[in-house]
Amino acid sequence: MKITRSNSQPFRKGPAEYFTGAVRVEQPFAGSAPARISGAFVTFEPGARTNWHTHPLGQTLIVTHGCGWVQAEGGLREEILAGDIVWFPPGVKHWHGATATQGLTHIAIAEALNGKSVDWLEKVTDAQYQPA
Amino acid sequence: MKITRSNSQPFRKGPAEYFTGAVRVEQPFAGSAPARISGAFVTFEPGARTNWHTHPLGQTLIVTHGCGWVQAEGGLREEILAGDIVWFPPGVKHWHGATATQGLTHIAIAEALNGKSVDWLEKVTDAQYQPA
Repeated sequence: MKITRSNSQPFRKGPAEYFTGAVRVEQPFAGSAPARISGAFVTFEPGARTNWHTHPLGQTLIVTHGCGWVQAEGGLREEILAGDIVWFPPGVKHWHGATATQGLTHIAIAEALNGKSVDWLEKVTDAQYQPA
Repeated sequence: MKITRSNSQPFRKGPAEYFTGAVRVEQPFAGSAPARISGAFVTFEPGARTNWHTHPLGQTLIVTHGCGWVQAEGGLREEILAGDIVWFPPGVKHWHGATATQGLTHIAIAEALNGKSVDWLEKVTDAQYQPA
């Protein structure tokens, strides 16, 4: 049994290579093999978002604070609020982040396939993030 | 992409067969194959706890409110607080619940093996829950 205390780890910045805007990653966690699970709390300042990306075995988001936007390729941008849970199936290209005027915190959880749990793609443009 | 809204599902009671005391299960979620993940928010009233149990591919707990106790077989009972994250490796016999005087809410997440994510065992006795 392993307990990771809430005050035991410093935050990491979401790298500019994969995110737009200020993103804070906290409380990373991972199971031990043969489990595949890993995740973290991720906080997006207003306007901040991920790049487009896919997950080989999908991704679960559990919104713990605030208000955000999510979009799967070919679909509409949708609003998410605290308590909402989002499932992106394996291979579905998507992005997620805060709204333009509110911050968002979610827990992001994914399973790894051959040691990899995400494939990062291009930036979400301002026009994609906030269509006119 | 599937969004489960926080207000879309009624709660379920944690069944007396597997829990002691008042336990509320909310916001169940699950991935789609080949993903194996599923989980839910679980709230324990003071004094409430799971039975002893194991998970074939382990379990992650993310504490979102309150204060609880966790114990793996052969180890000491430990206290968990909001923000703490607990990992029980595959096959490790354990229990979790509220303390005797405070409620606990956690997100419980597990991966399924051959369609099964938990093996329920005997009750946690009062003497095990709160040693003299």
